[in-house]
Amino acid sequence: MSDDKKQAALDYHALPIPGKLSVELTKPTATAKDLSLAYSPGVAEPVREIARDPENAYRYTGKGNLVAVISDGTAILGLGNLGPLASKPVMEGKGVLFKCFAGINSVDIEVNAESPQAFIDTVARIADSWGGINLEDIKAPECFEIERALIERCNIPVFHDDQHGTAIVTAAGMLNALDIAGKAIEKASIVCMGAGAAAIACMKLLVSCGAKPENIVMLDRKGVIHSGREDLNEYKAMFACETSKRTLDDAIDGADVFVGLSGPGLMSADHIRKMAKDPIVFACTNPDPEIHPDLARETRPDVIMATGRSDYPNQVNNVLGFPFIFRGALDVRATRINEAMKVAAVHAIKDLAREPVPQVVLDAYEREGMSFGRDYIIPTPVDSRLLERVTSAVAQAAVDSGVARKPYPSHYPLKSIEDVYG
Amino acid sequence: MSDDKKQAALDYHALPIPGKLSVELTKPTATAKDLSLAYSPGVAEPVREIARDPENAYRYTGKGNLVAVISDGTAILGLGNLGPLASKPVMEGKGVLFKCFAGINSVDIEVNAESPQAFIDTVARIADSWGGINLEDIKAPECFEIERALIERCNIPVFHDDQHGTAIVTAAGMLNALDIAGKAIEKASIVCMGAGAAAIACMKLLVSCGAKPENIVMLDRKGVIHSGREDLNEYKAMFACETSKRTLDDAIDGADVFVGLSGPGLMSADHIRKMAKDPIVFACTNPDPEIHPDLARETRPDVIMATGRSDYPNQVNNVLGFPFIFRGALDVRATRINEAMKVAAVHAIKDLAREPVPQVVLDAYEREGMSFGRDYIIPTPVDSRLLERVTSAVAQAAVDSGVARKPYPSHYPLKSIEDVYG
Repeated sequence: MSDDKKQAALDYHALPIPGKLSVELTKPTATAKDLSLAYSPGVAEPVREIARDPENAYRYTGKGNLVAVISDGTAILGLGNLGPLASKPVMEGKGVLFKCFAGINSVDIEVNAESPQAFIDTVARIADSWGGINLEDIKAPECFEIERALIERCNIPVFHDDQHGTAIVTAAGMLNALDIAGKAIEKASIVCMGAGAAAIACMKLLVSCGAKPENIVMLDRKGVIHSGREDLNEYKAMFACETSKRTLDDAIDGADVFVGLSGPGLMSADHIRKMAKDPIVFACTNPDPEIHPDLARETRPDVIMATGRSDYPNQVNNVLGFPFIFRGALDVRATRINEAMKVAAVHAIKDLAREPVPQVVLDAYEREGMSFGRDYIIPTPVDSRLLERVTSAVAQAAVDSGVARKPYPSHYPLKSIEDVYG
Repeated sequence: MSDDKKQAALDYHALPIPGKLSVELTKPTATAKDLSLAYSPGVAEPVREIARDPENAYRYTGKGNLVAVISDGTAILGLGNLGPLASKPVMEGKGVLFKCFAGINSVDIEVNAESPQAFIDTVARIADSWGGINLEDIKAPECFEIERALIERCNIPVFHDDQHGTAIVTAAGMLNALDIAGKAIEKASIVCMGAGAAAIACMKLLVSCGAKPENIVMLDRKGVIHSGREDLNEYKAMFACETSKRTLDDAIDGADVFVGLSGPGLMSADHIRKMAKDPIVFACTNPDPEIHPDLARETRPDVIMATGRSDYPNQVNNVLGFPFIFRGALDVRATRINEAMKVAAVHAIKDLAREPVPQVVLDAYEREGMSFGRDYIIPTPVDSRLLERVTSAVAQAAVDSGVARKPYPSHYPLKSIEDVYG
């Protein structure tokens, strides 16, 4: 990033007032009578109603539209472990996206815990304050146990976006890419470069969508994760396979799919050259992917390519997922975000890419050819149909899978595109 | 409260959307470029700056104008221990007051902790997220240890408003009342009915303001707290005195001052009749005080009376204190709210009552005779001069006592009343 751009980012955060969010009043407060309703003595009534039935917290407080964005700062963006406080701009940024894309209020909590167990205890004790918890930028493998324990202890959705948000958007694009390439997911051979939180979640969700575990080869820093290795944690071990392959060079030979969630430049022209016909390459490391899209296309004109970059087609961007997944979960007061809801989100995002793109979306991009095909397998973040499509799919899946505590809201599904755009 | 008023309070909280607060955007977010500054990749720059120097969190995030309102719901208003979730409307209401009166953003955290130590650990681990912590509605004696430990462990102000907010406003009114009654605080004999968090904090602050511990008689549910009792916790024990008095009836005989922070109707006409000339009665239990102001005046026309009620003169209302105390502490980035800052707040509130009341304030009240005297010993909450007077006094005291990490802001003190009112 240029010095000018860096300064622009700092100025954006600092001026005219520090930060990006404020807390504002939604009810009248001009008179003493207003304040006697907002605080003492009026506030005693909702207190009594909630003490009588905890569900009334959704009726009389902001809980039902409030998500906590929680981090320990151990895996901030691509920057690594810089500690909880340094993660605050990211967590506030996530709050900006929650508001912009789905009208969800957020609170960011930076946790300075001495152990994963201390992190879990801390968050579990304060979880009732909100309608949902978005875990963010917590390093693997700790993030797996943290999420598992919090899902168990909390009665609200707990969702580690670096895992599942990434996985959902990746899977949506992947299903479209496989379809365009004429490959069946059940038969596709998949190489996953990276074995962190996002990589493991991606592979698990692809399996939920039909991929066969025996067709997946995962690599970490030391190479292929195979059953002969004794240095694997339990999460990597789930993907250990019987194979003589040891390097990316071995694994990529004849592969249909490459998913990169590892580091910049780790895939070479030689690697992509060895892939099967119509190779699918999701090089998601940001801002510098495993292989530059220009190099990939030049080497393999038949590639279907996605990256994390907004300046190339097929951006894998979590913002296509988490705002609407939480919106759907909150709208039916789901107790968790289960696999059925994640798969529903995958299909809603996937299906939207197959629909004609409204002019308002086309106008926002300078790019040519935005219709379903090799260069448009994933919708763009400006496509405001995402709100209705993903939200309603997730909400319906929550109802159907029995984790909703409220009926499906009557305003879903909207009837036509006019309901969204006009 | 009438059924109509109860319903109005519930409707206020529920309609048209639940709760009283929302989180809003303070920076542009209309374009993809805006969002690339608010989130990835732009957000990386402030992250790096904060990792380099934690103080930069005040520059690039909302931390410096953000206060957490934290409760375990063990002493909600006058309602008792109804649990953390039921306290949420009160904590959100406190957030409304922070915003209305001092422009401070707030987050409410309801803590479900199995012990005071678990509460302390939980809050200490997340404290870096904010610029200050307002503890609220935590029962005594646990609140004392909780506050003490958190002050020690956190590098930001931690302030239990039920204790110190109440104490500060009470002390401000008390100093004026004593002056009007011609009583010296050093000689005043004081009866404190109640030995909970607010009562103990009030008496400690009166001592900081000049009252003599040996002139204070405190009573709890069992009567006078005297040195022969063996059932006292360490906080009550600080006020145990050598005395043969055992009941309020004994203690009130000839007393100059009665402070009630106990329960409705606990002071009778006979009690007030026994007090010294120009008795000072602060009957602060809400909404029904220890003695009704009409009965008190009828029995003792020479009384100087304050209550928690807005429909009688001299309302002891915490909102005169906490918004501005935090505003002052935040403005100079104080590491704590120390005794000097509390005493400064007392004198700022006390002094403001002695100034002519602006027409805009008079217009807000139907009451006659709002000028310094028996029926006007405390400013009213609508007096917006409080913001500048109390804030600047607290900020200056923080600087003078060495707990400020930032210089005194150049906008304090404002030069004249026009600077405040227009």
